Amino acid sequence: MDTQELAVTPRTRLRRNHQRGDFDRETVNSILDATTLCHVGYLVDGKPAVTPTIHWREGDHVYWHGSSASRALRNSEGHDVCLTVSLLDGMVLARSAFHHSANYRSVMIYGHGKKVTDIDEKADKLRNFVETLFPGRWDMLRPMTDQELKATTILGMPIEEASAKVRTGGPIDDEEDYELPIWSGILPLVHTLQRPVPDPRNLRGVAMPDHVLAFARP
Amino acid sequence: MDTQELAVTPRTRLRRNHQRGDFDRETVNSILDATTLCHVGYLVDGKPAVTPTIHWREGDHVYWHGSSASRALRNSEGHDVCLTVSLLDGMVLARSAFHHSANYRSVMIYGHGKKVTDIDEKADKLRNFVETLFPGRWDMLRPMTDQELKATTILGMPIEEASAKVRTGGPIDDEEDYELPIWSGILPLVHTLQRPVPDPRNLRGVAMPDHVLAFARP
Repeated sequence: MDTQELAVTPRTRLRRNHQRGDFDRETVNSILDATTLCHVGYLVDGKPAVTPTIHWREGDHVYWHGSSASRALRNSEGHDVCLTVSLLDGMVLARSAFHHSANYRSVMIYGHGKKVTDIDEKADKLRNFVETLFPGRWDMLRPMTDQELKATTILGMPIEEASAKVRTGGPIDDEEDYELPIWSGILPLVHTLQRPVPDPRNLRGVAMPDHVLAFARP
Repeated sequence: MDTQELAVTPRTRLRRNHQRGDFDRETVNSILDATTLCHVGYLVDGKPAVTPTIHWREGDHVYWHGSSASRALRNSEGHDVCLTVSLLDGMVLARSAFHHSANYRSVMIYGHGKKVTDIDEKADKLRNFVETLFPGRWDMLRPMTDQELKATTILGMPIEEASAKVRTGGPIDDEEDYELPIWSGILPLVHTLQRPVPDPRNLRGVAMPDHVLAFARP
């Protein structure tokens, strides 16, 4: 079990609710792996922009990808970015408005987006991406073409300047408010799969592979 | 029905997949209202940072809030921000890796965070926030104190320089790939509520109000 701690920097030091902070690499990784959706912040003409995209992790690096023509990727390559992953796990209803809260898990990673330039490494990364989501799928697919590889940009970033922030549990009210007859508690939220919808143009007799239902990452 | 179109600016013009773009105010509003979670991008020492937070909408403005000591809020007040809301609605499995995709609804709003300074307006906004989430709850709660109001910063922004981007439907494969015996389709994802968890310190006989189960967002 990896219990390596990430170094705290001025950017990652938690100023508020620092008891919710965590710099353990294993915690950071588990949150990154718990969802496919991240939000990447980058600059456009010196102003912030935030684009949602799909990420994946390989060891101590995080990756994201898109069209080589994407402005979000071009403005992230070699530039400062912040990649944030968050899961909203529930609403927390307290006895005062002030102590209402949310349960969540989040990670912020600061760094520079670095392009994967080697064509074989790109193919490997995309294979890892698909296999992370749907194990066994890559080899079932029509192979990537060189043109598709060229049209795809992959950016990566080491998970070094990073922190996690987590809130769990019920409301924490002012002590005197516990005497009030106000219902409080947690309203848990989960991201769940619904029944897969086969493409109407699937060929007759083509069965749904196990990896479709094995997908358990929101 | 409001079908007002938002003006397209160099920042909001969609460069990629522009058929997925939408500048209709009603579409933008419906996505903002479909979840409570947003990601706000702002600058720290000239570099991007992205913080997840809860937002709410009142008419043609979006609001978010937090501790008055929050760095994210202090760096957003009077400064350029990008507030992004996104919902991941499903994974799209195609016959080639290249045409795999995701179904989603997202909104990006650019602007400057503006602090709500009037104390009565702040109280109104927080009331609207709670009532948006849990109709009828505000009047059941222990009233806000002046100190709590002072400790809370609310930022708002007009929904003016904004765009929506939406993908729905199944995979769109290369025409010749439809002859391949590869399962393709959609794996839909939904954010659902689980059974509420009452606080163990709720007083005996305090019933769960209807607004808890009425919460149907995200």
